[in-house]
This record gives sequence, structure tokens and C-alpha cells, in this order.
Amino acid sequence: MGKEIGITVKKSEDFSEWYTQLVVKAELADYAPVKGLIVLRPDGYSIWESIKSSLDEKLSHTGHRNGFLPVLIPESLLGKEKDHFTGFNPEVFWVTRSGDGELGDKLALRPTSETLAYTMYAKWIRSWRDLPLKINFWNSALRAEIKATKPFLRTSEFLWQEGHTAHAERDEAEKEVIDILEIYKKTVENELAIPVITGKKSEKEKFVGAVYTLTMESLMPDGKALQMGTTHFLGQNFSKPFEVKYADKNNVENFVWQTSWGVSWRLIGGMIMVHGDDKGLVLPPRVAPIQVVIIPIYRSNEEKNMVLEKSREIKQELDNRKIRAHLDDRDQVTPGFKFNDWEMKGVPIRIELGPKDLEHDKVVFVRRHNQLKQEYPINIVVEIIIKELEKIHNDMFSDAQKILDERTVTLETYDDFKSELDKGMLIKAPICDNPSCEEKIKEETGADIRVIPDGCDDDDSKCIYCGDQSKIRPLFARGY
Amino acid sequence: MGKEIGITVKKSEDFSEWYTQLVVKAELADYAPVKGLIVLRPDGYSIWESIKSSLDEKLSHTGHRNGFLPVLIPESLLGKEKDHFTGFNPEVFWVTRSGDGELGDKLALRPTSETLAYTMYAKWIRSWRDLPLKINFWNSALRAEIKATKPFLRTSEFLWQEGHTAHAERDEAEKEVIDILEIYKKTVENELAIPVITGKKSEKEKFVGAVYTLTMESLMPDGKALQMGTTHFLGQNFSKPFEVKYADKNNVENFVWQTSWGVSWRLIGGMIMVHGDDKGLVLPPRVAPIQVVIIPIYRSNEEKNMVLEKSREIKQELDNRKIRAHLDDRDQVTPGFKFNDWEMKGVPIRIELGPKDLEHDKVVFVRRHNQLKQEYPINIVVEIIIKELEKIHNDMFSDAQKILDERTVTLETYDDFKSELDKGMLIKAPICDNPSCEEKIKEETGADIRVIPDGCDDDDSKCIYCGDQSKIRPLFARGY
Repeated sequence: MGKEIGITVKKSEDFSEWYTQLVVKAELADYAPVKGLIVLRPDGYSIWESIKSSLDEKLSHTGHRNGFLPVLIPESLLGKEKDHFTGFNPEVFWVTRSGDGELGDKLALRPTSETLAYTMYAKWIRSWRDLPLKINFWNSALRAEIKATKPFLRTSEFLWQEGHTAHAERDEAEKEVIDILEIYKKTVENELAIPVITGKKSEKEKFVGAVYTLTMESLMPDGKALQMGTTHFLGQNFSKPFEVKYADKNNVENFVWQTSWGVSWRLIGGMIMVHGDDKGLVLPPRVAPIQVVIIPIYRSNEEKNMVLEKSREIKQELDNRKIRAHLDDRDQVTPGFKFNDWEMKGVPIRIELGPKDLEHDKVVFVRRHNQLKQEYPINIVVEIIIKELEKIHNDMFSDAQKILDERTVTLETYDDFKSELDKGMLIKAPICDNPSCEEKIKEETGADIRVIPDGCDDDDSKCIYCGDQSKIRPLFARGY
Repeated sequence: MGKEIGITVKKSEDFSEWYTQLVVKAELADYAPVKGLIVLRPDGYSIWESIKSSLDEKLSHTGHRNGFLPVLIPESLLGKEKDHFTGFNPEVFWVTRSGDGELGDKLALRPTSETLAYTMYAKWIRSWRDLPLKINFWNSALRAEIKATKPFLRTSEFLWQEGHTAHAERDEAEKEVIDILEIYKKTVENELAIPVITGKKSEKEKFVGAVYTLTMESLMPDGKALQMGTTHFLGQNFSKPFEVKYADKNNVENFVWQTSWGVSWRLIGGMIMVHGDDKGLVLPPRVAPIQVVIIPIYRSNEEKNMVLEKSREIKQELDNRKIRAHLDDRDQVTPGFKFNDWEMKGVPIRIELGPKDLEHDKVVFVRRHNQLKQEYPINIVVEIIIKELEKIHNDMFSDAQKILDERTVTLETYDDFKSELDKGMLIKAPICDNPSCEEKIKEETGADIRVIPDGCDDDDSKCIYCGDQSKIRPLFARGY
């Protein structure tokens, strides 16, 4: 593969450049004409659709329904919850004109929809019979990014879903943020083969306007943590200013308890980083737009006819079994070119079929994720593929889990903290409850508390920053 | 049903008010805080998802793939095709600020994505091997509406899909606009039970920037035509300014031939208008979020237990057969209230089950669209429902077809034209090829050429406006 087609840097040497080249060269996405915006090409969008359909099914089974909110939000609404507004204001895009005229009031492009959704919920919710109200919105959010932008990880518009629920009881809302986080975790593990760690965000890192935020985080190969999804318990922080009230069974008015939660196409960025290699993408089988590619190998026309006929048979059988298969019968490029091409695109399984294979009733079978090459009898190849697609997913997940475990360290001193951080480790370290310790650590090292897992209380140790008695032992890392 | 819940006007007396009350009271949509924008509630969004999934499957089978384009388009891009820009400029929303800062270049919110898509296509298309390129985008479009806005029919943001294709050959592109129109027609007829008339738009009414536009139109009960979907043959009008070129097999560079096409949630508006009645929505079964509602009827607790048990059995059986069924077991409202409630929401079939029905092993079965009430033995009710859901669709379609036929008239004089138009007719009348006749008719009557069906050439008659020799006999109406 020519330099202009392949990736020109190694993942281990220039991770950032490797990533952006891969996104573009594997044709997942491309840069739009406006800085910070990307376009999704069909393979990239297909992966998003797979994630979406898996998550959507789980949300539907748990009683959530989908809706649509417009992208334009009046400034006055956005300002109703003060912390929220202060948090988002610096990155809001403002519409001030339509056609040749000035708008009376400027309109925000949705950075998130709490304010708009709850304005509507205040109209729709009357009594306890209307609760719980659990609506999810598949849309995009817009946040003008000032920092270095990166496809899928930091873009000024991104695809996501945002769920917004209202409950009569506080407990029910608190259960919702736990349940949704579990659904997110299952989706990421089962579809993208990425292990995650779940828990709470610190006060400093929680969603602006939330009582608290739950998160799932994973560690990327460059040693930075990626926040892959969050759920927010909003308490009554929004229901009070937005007057989202219900009459209970005794006809007494109460404010509802609320949650909001979202995952975005950032998940695709995580998948690329965790699994990709120097040859290109490595796609987990369940989200791969093409799961199996068949490469016919021939020289003469006679060979071509024989090989193509058998290839088509295998393809047809795979179609019948609902395996997403592609027969690459391009005449104008060599098998070697095709191997590289599909390796770049991360197709999990490659089948090679030449005249000699046909003679011996076998095929060559190559796994993308570990490059393992084997031969199998042609008559059982479809069964092997079906089994292997499952196995590849499991192997990719356990490989990633192993790396995550190996790169998680527990330590007790700030010196160790700094040196392990520079090695790209995820660090379990004790900290007290003085918020300034977290802030100082962030200032001095760039790392913050990524996640406070359940059961990480620790009042037996010393805060790595100030030496006072610790409270918890959360996970620290630098983040995306 | 109290006045505040039911629709307070008749469809035949105040169509416009009937429509907007119905949209809100059936909980399909609600008004957003910004004028001209609406929010879709779960039932409204569910109908859109049904349309989407039916259309998406057909597009996928014909080799189209989905992608994503950002909503922000630089002004310079939008201006590259002059007619296109002139057409859209008056209704473009402009982003001029982000956070507290002014943007260097103002950004348009996508009114349609030709200019952005083709900027990308120019990068992606290199040779004949890259063609045809057929990508569809499910997104929303934003056009600041100055005229009276109306949910689903005229809103400043609307959900739609826009397909954009590039072809090596002109013929192939011209076939694409015909094929897609046929797919649209099938979708509307098979999902929404609305008959449509297909053909060409006049020069005056074509898409700005197209060589020609194909359309499907239907007549609404108020006598206005609704454009329900269009496909545009763009020729090389965009490929030239955007330099979308490919090298052919002889390595000679050519501009591609292009098409674009779209349908929007306007289809939902059409469905509401064509089928709804004074009691509320009437939903075609295939898109109804709930296809069957079961209403248990009881007085004592003993009756309640018996009736609910049987109702749950029927519900379970319907679930097993993939029929979307709902058991309305609300205790706090009467059966009569429930009847009205589900009639408002347009559920195609209602099953009533009381102690006496149980005694006689029967259920009461009520069809929403024609109010027909029958009794059926309880043991065959599921089979009846499955058959009836099909029949109801077909009946709704043929009822609508009958009305469309009855309201289509052929005539020869301008006087007849004006009087029939005022009766809400769709008018087949001869016209010459002088564009000023079409313009004058529009000025004087508000009607325009809605569609020029295939085979409507007519050079035997006199133009209804100027009396010169006619060329065609298209369909005229006032439009939405």
C-alpha cells in the first residue's frame, strides 16, 4: 500500500496523528468546510446506527419513548437555571439573523436540551398519572469548541442521544441514573468491546446544574481517560425554576425529580483508539458494517470463473445467515491491494479463495484483530465464521480488559502519582474531601478525578496531596 | 368528553382550527417556545419512525447508504450556485456569534445540503469506480418561515431526509429521480394510505438549481393540494461550480450528473388531514403506535379480576403476534372516557370486554375509521384483528382514492376553472407553453400547476388563460 493510502505514522509513536489519519483514511469521517465540524461517511454512520439501534432497544424495553426537540432555544430559557447557563454560555452558537433581518431575540443552537425539554414537561405533566415521563431524543448538540478539535472526540457539532425523565419520587429518579448507566455499560461492552469503569463524578467535574453525575470511563492507549457516557441526577434543580409540578393522589402539588443522560459518537472515537492498529481500523464484529470480506484469487479467466462461482455461493450462504458479507470482485486491483484496503477498514474476517484452495476444498481464513491465519474446510466455513465472530468480540474485549487492568495502579504518594501518570496509568490514590486538593492536583499535573467507583471509601490512608486523612480512593487520569 | 379535551370545531366547518387542535390534543406535537417551531411528542415521533424505517429499508435495498452532515454551512458555499442561493437566502437562519465573540464568517443553518454535500463529493469522487455515489441523510432542515406556520406543514425546522447522488451517466441520474419517486409513492400509499399523483413540476415551481423536479401530490379535504415529496434532476448545475468530477475508463475527466430528493414530516400532516375526523385522529394501522386498545369493563372487584385476566391473555397473544396492543387498565377513569381518549388518538381497533361478553365468550370490536361495531367470538379475536388491520388499511386507502377521483375534474374554460377551484377541486385543464399564463393564473386565483403527469400532452385544446393552442393538460390547485 502506497504511503499516500496507508497510515504514515505508528500508533505507538504519534498517537494523535495516527488517530486522525485513520479516521479519514478508513473513510469513517471527513472534515467539513467549517473548522471543528465533521461529516460522517457511510461506514462511520453505519457504526453509529448499530450503537443507536442496540441502545434504542434497551431504552424501549425499559419504558422510554423517543421524541423530537428543535435545535433553537431562546436565550431567556437557557438562562433560567443559572449554573447551567454559566457552564454552557461560552460555547453557545447564537443565531441573530434570518434572511436579511435581525431577530428580535437571539436564539441558541442547543448545547443540550434540559431547558427546552423541561419547558415542555411543565405543560405536559399535570398529575401523578403522567409520571414517570421518560423521553429520549436522538439528535445532535452544538458547542463551539475552542480547544484543539478531533473527529468524534471534540467537535463543535456531535451526534448523541439525550434522555430526560421526570419522576414523582426521588428514589425512582436516583434508580434511573443507575439503571441507565448500566444500560450504557452493557452497550459499550457488548457492541464495542470496550471495558469501562463506572461510578460518580466529583463535585468539580459534575454536570452543571446536576445534584450529582454518574459516569463510565475507559483508558485510552495514550494514557488519557475517555468519559464515555454520563447520567445526571438533577434533583429538583430544574423542576423548581421551570415549574415542573404534579398533583399527587391527595391533589397536593409537588415538584418532580429529574434525570438527564447521554452518550455521543465519542464512543466511536473510543472504539477506534482502543482497537485500531498500524494497519488501520479493527472493528468489533457486532458493529462492523462488513463482517466478512471474501477475496477471490485467480490469474486466468478459467480460474476466475471457478473461484468467483464458489465465492458467490459462500457470500449467498452468509447473506442467508444474516452475516454482513462482501465479495470484493474488483478486477482492476491486486489481491494484495485488497488485503490492505480491508485491513484499513477493519473488517473482522477475511476469506481468501484461490484455485489451489478450491482443489483442496479449503479456504484461507484471516482474523483482523490478531492477524491469525488458518485454513478451514470449505464446507464448514460458514459455521466457523458464525462462531468466530462471537469469539473475536470476546477476545477483543478481554484483551482490552487485560490492558486496562495492567494499567490501573494503586499508590500512596504524590511523587509516585506524577511518575505513574507520565507512564499513562490510571491511578487509584487516596484523597481528602477538601476540594482544593483536587484542584491543585489538576493544576499541577493535568489529571483529575475521573470516577469515584462504588465502595472506594477510604478513611485509613493519607491524602496524596495534603497528607490529611483521606476520604475516598478514586481513579485519577488526564482526560480527553 | 369535556370541551377542554375534545376538539371544539368540526372538520367540515373550520378545517384549519380543527387541524391544529387535533395535532395538539392527540398529543402528536406541541408548540415550542420559538414561533414556528414544534416539539414531537412520543406518538408523533413514533409515526415518523415508522415512515422512516419503511423508507430506509427501500433505500437500502436499492444501494443507498446513510451519512451525516453538520447543520452549519459557510455563506460562501451556499452562494456557489446562484439560483439556489437566491431561492433560499430570504429564509436562512444565520449564526453570527459563538459565546461572547463574533464569528469571522457567518454560518447558515442548513436550509438543504446540496452545497455542503457536493463540496464533500468533490473530495470523495476520483474515478468511475467511485460512482454511482448514493448517500441519504436523515436530518432536519431550517427555513425561517414568514407565512403562517402550521405543525408538520410549515415550520421553521422540520425533520426530513435528503438524498444526494452522483452518477457517471445522465440516463442513470434521470432513472434515479424516477425510481425514488416510485419508492416515495409506495411508502405513502402503503404506510399512510394516501393516494398520490406523480409527475413533473412546471419550470416555475421546480427546485431552485434543478434542471427539473418530479413531485407527488395529493388533495387535502380543504381543496388544497399538498406536495408530499420531490426528486430533483440537477444535471451538472451543481457539479460544475462545485467541481465534482471523475476520471472515466479512458482517464478523461467529466463532471458527474446529480440528483437530490426528499420527503419530510409533512407526510404526517397529510395523514392527519386526509384521515382525521371530528372525534380526532384516524391512524392507518401500519404506522399506528398502538394498533389495538383493549378496554376492560367492570363494576365489582370480582368482575374486574375476571375481565382483567382475560384482557391480559388477549394482550399477551397480540404481543406474541407482534401486534402493538395496549390494555387500558386505568382505574380512575370510566370506559366512556377511555373510548373518547383512544378515539382522539386514532387507535385503529378497540376491543371492549365486560362480564357479559365473557359469559357469552365474545368481545365487542370497534373500528376507528368507520365506527363499525361488531361482536366476535373471543377465541378467534386475535385472528380477526390481524386480518382486519390489513383490511382497514386497504379500506382507508380506497376511501381516500375515491374522494381524490371524485374531486378531480377536467374542464376547458377559465370561468369553470375559477368556480371549480372554489369548490376545492383538483383541475385538469389545458395550458399553452407561455410561462406568463401560469403566472397570471396564480396571481388571479392563487392556483398553480401542481403536477404535470406523464402522458398529459395536449395540443388539441385551447389554453384556458390565453386561448392559444395548448401544450399540456396538467393538474391545477391551490397549494399548501
